[in-house]
This record gives sequence, C-alpha cells and structure tokens, in this order.
Amino acid sequence: MKNLQNLTFMIARAQADYARCIDDDRLEQWPDFFVEDCLYKITTADSQRDGLEAGIVFANTRAMLRDRISALREANIYEKQAYRHVLGMPCVLDENAGGVRSETAFFVVRIMRDGTSDLFATGRYLDHYEIQNETALLKERIVVCDSSRIDTLLAIPL
Amino acid sequence: MKNLQNLTFMIARAQADYARCIDDDRLEQWPDFFVEDCLYKITTADSQRDGLEAGIVFANTRAMLRDRISALREANIYEKQAYRHVLGMPCVLDENAGGVRSETAFFVVRIMRDGTSDLFATGRYLDHYEIQNETALLKERIVVCDSSRIDTLLAIPL
Amino acid sequence: MKNLQNLTFMIARAQADYARCIDDDRLEQWPDFFVEDCLYKITTADSQRDGLEAGIVFANTRAMLRDRISALREANIYEKQAYRHVLGMPCVLDENAGGVRSETAFFVVRIMRDGTSDLFATGRYLDHYEIQNETALLKERIVVCDSSRIDTLLAIPL
Repeated sequence: MKNLQNLTFMIARAQADYARCIDDDRLEQWPDFFVEDCLYKITTADSQRDGLEAGIVFANTRAMLRDRISALREANIYEKQAYRHVLGMPCVLDENAGGVRSETAFFVVRIMRDGTSDLFATGRYLDHYEIQNETALLKERIVVCDSSRIDTLLAIPL
Repeated sequence: MKNLQNLTFMIARAQADYARCIDDDRLEQWPDFFVEDCLYKITTADSQRDGLEAGIVFANTRAMLRDRISALREANIYEKQAYRHVLGMPCVLDENAGGVRSETAFFVVRIMRDGTSDLFATGRYLDHYEIQNETALLKERIVVCDSSRIDTLLAIPL
Repeated sequence: MKNLQNLTFMIARAQADYARCIDDDRLEQWPDFFVEDCLYKITTADSQRDGLEAGIVFANTRAMLRDRISALREANIYEKQAYRHVLGMPCVLDENAGGVRSETAFFVVRIMRDGTSDLFATGRYLDHYEIQNETALLKERIVVCDSSRIDTLLAIPL
C-alpha cells in the first residue's frame, strides 16, 4: 500500500512535470523525460483496438524525439498554438524488476494565437516507467487518443 | 494528517479505477465498485438544491446496477459513444466508524463514433465509502450534474 | 521525497477545497484561503510574458478580497452562472523558510442558468504558500489564463 502510494506519487509528479514542460513551450527539455532507449507513439483508440502497430507519430530513441523538436522549431508551425494538459490520477497496473506500468487519462486544450480555445484531444497514456533515484523516467509512452479525428497537423507532443 | 493522506489516496485510486472501467467499456465490472447494499443516483444541481429525491437514474442494490448494464448491452445504445473522465482530487469530508464521505469534481467528455467529441457533463460525486482491506468501496454515490440539460439518453454510467 | 509528497498533498488538498468553495458558491469563505497580507492577481499568458504588472483583477490584502465578494453579491451578476474547476496535480517548485512555491494547471467550465456549459478558462496557478498547522494558506496566487480572450465580465474568482 505504502509502496503503491509512493509509486503513484512519483508517476503523478513526473507526469505533471512533463505536461508543464510542453505547456510552457520548453520542448527542448521534453526528451529528458524519457530514457535513451525508449518508445513514443501517438495512436487512436480504433487503431489500438485493431492491433495496428503504426502510429500517427512514432519514435524509438531519444535522439528521434530531439530530431522531432528540432523539426518543429524550424517549421515554426507550433508557434501558432499552445496546449494545456490536465491529467487524471495515474492507475498503477503492474510493477516488477523491469519497471512500472501505468495508465492515465488526459484532456488537452489547444489555445490559438487569436485567443480561441478548443478541447483538442482526450485519451490515455499507456506508460512504462523506469525508476531512477526516486524519479520516474519513461521507457515507453503510448498516447491513445479517443477520437480518430486527430488533427493531421499534430505538431506539439502530447 | 498521515491518515487523511492515506484515505485520500485510497479514494483517488478507487475513483481512477472506476473511471477507467467505464471509459474502457468494461461495464460488467462497474457494479464491483459498490457494496451489495448501495445507493447510486444521478441528479442535477437544481434538483439537489430543491431537495428533490428522485434522480434521473436510481438504484439501491448492486443487482439493480447489474440489471442496468444488461439492459444497456441489449439496447446497444451505448455502442455509439465512449466517455473519458477526468476527476479532481477527492475532498475527504468526514470519517467515522460508518465509513468515509468525500466529494470530487468531474468532467466527462463524450466521443461519438464519427470522432466528434463534446464536454458531456461536469459535476461532483458525493460519495460514501466503506474501507475493506485498504480498498474503498462505494456504499453511496450521488452524481450531481451541474447542468440541468442532461441528455435524456443518458446511458453509460457516470 | 517523503517531505515533497506531504507538501504536494497539502497543496492539492488546499486547492481542492478552494475550488469546491467557489463551485459551491460559498464565496464569502474564499478569502479564508489567503493570509491577511496576500496577493491575488488574474492575468493572461501574454501579459505575463510581456512583464505587464497590472492584472485583470488585483488585490493585495484579504480585506480587498472580501470587498470584491461583497461587490459581486450586490451586483448579482454572479447568480447567472456557476463554475466547475478541475485541477492538475500541483508541481512543487521551491521550498524554503519563506514558504512553498507551486504551479498547477486548471480548467474551468462555466454553467449558465439555462443549462449551457462552456470551457470558460484554462491556465495555471502560480502560488506561494505558507504552511500553518499542516494547512497550506495562500500568500500569493497569480492566475495566468492561457487565452487573452478573457470575459470582461469576469466576476467569480478563479
């Protein structure tokens, strides 16, 4: 129980920091939430249900995450919008020598430069964490969006 | 303080599991979050304020909750939509020999089959929990929706 | 770690109570979440970025917060709407003899008398807390709204 509470707290803290990093537009720091040999994927509930492996976004090293941010900065698309994440409490699903698996609900609101806001995405994070010095680092994050209508300009990480 | 923190955690965990059960469409497991002799009611802030006892949805045994899910599965209405809950931190209001009372804010987004999403309901859970083996089970959940414009097709539990 | 977990819990609890106070329309109790010599400001991300000191709303004593509520009650504007807050997990940023600084994401939905709801505001609380008897009291709350399109009738506190 105590251990579960500690793990949940560590994950909730890592996730709040992760969301804050993106919402503050400190995207260059975003890859630091992952271990070097990681998996990051954005997919939809339909694709996930149908067992489709390919995601809308896919990266399997931290270097690929960094490249993605560099590309975004060059394209400058991201400047037209900002995100605001609010997450639910993480559900710790499994813990073993290899790490901790959890699932967390999320809402993301997108704020455009002209001040209009919309509920951009809802879904859940399927995460696999490695705990290093009481900090939870992502080995794997699969972002499963509830809707299949995901903006094809999906630029900022979720 | 320690005790309050533990209780809050237990309730937050039970609530995150409850939300995940519904959002994953594992509705047959939903009654397991309640004790056998329970109360489940969906009402509106206006009705609650006016002291109206009748709710939009009402069940006072776990068997009635199970019947409700069976009816939903047969009617097949629920298949056209999915929910995503995000909850606030539970406020523990009272603890005594009979259990723990808490209040928790919620947002529910509804995702239709065609991919459109809308903020379906906001409100608060007025809960009464029984703690069994460090697990919080619902003796009572009154779902108070903020808006009186609640979809009359209200099908999936909130 | 233990200490960080305790602090986060104390702040999350204070924030859940704060949100519940407003959403329950118990506005007269709202100033009690602050110390006497406090700062409360509502501003926008753009103004914050540009270093503009003036906020949309500004108060630097608890008496000013009380005056604000009295004015609202007299004007009766607030009766036409209610809020529902859902907050993220607080990020504890700094702790020292002077108190604790944290940042927390928020979503606020506004429910009008006719039952329509809209996502009224998103943003973050930049807080400075004083801990008294395991209760976190606000010395400073800067509410940074993400959008610059903030309703000029902004009446109820955020």
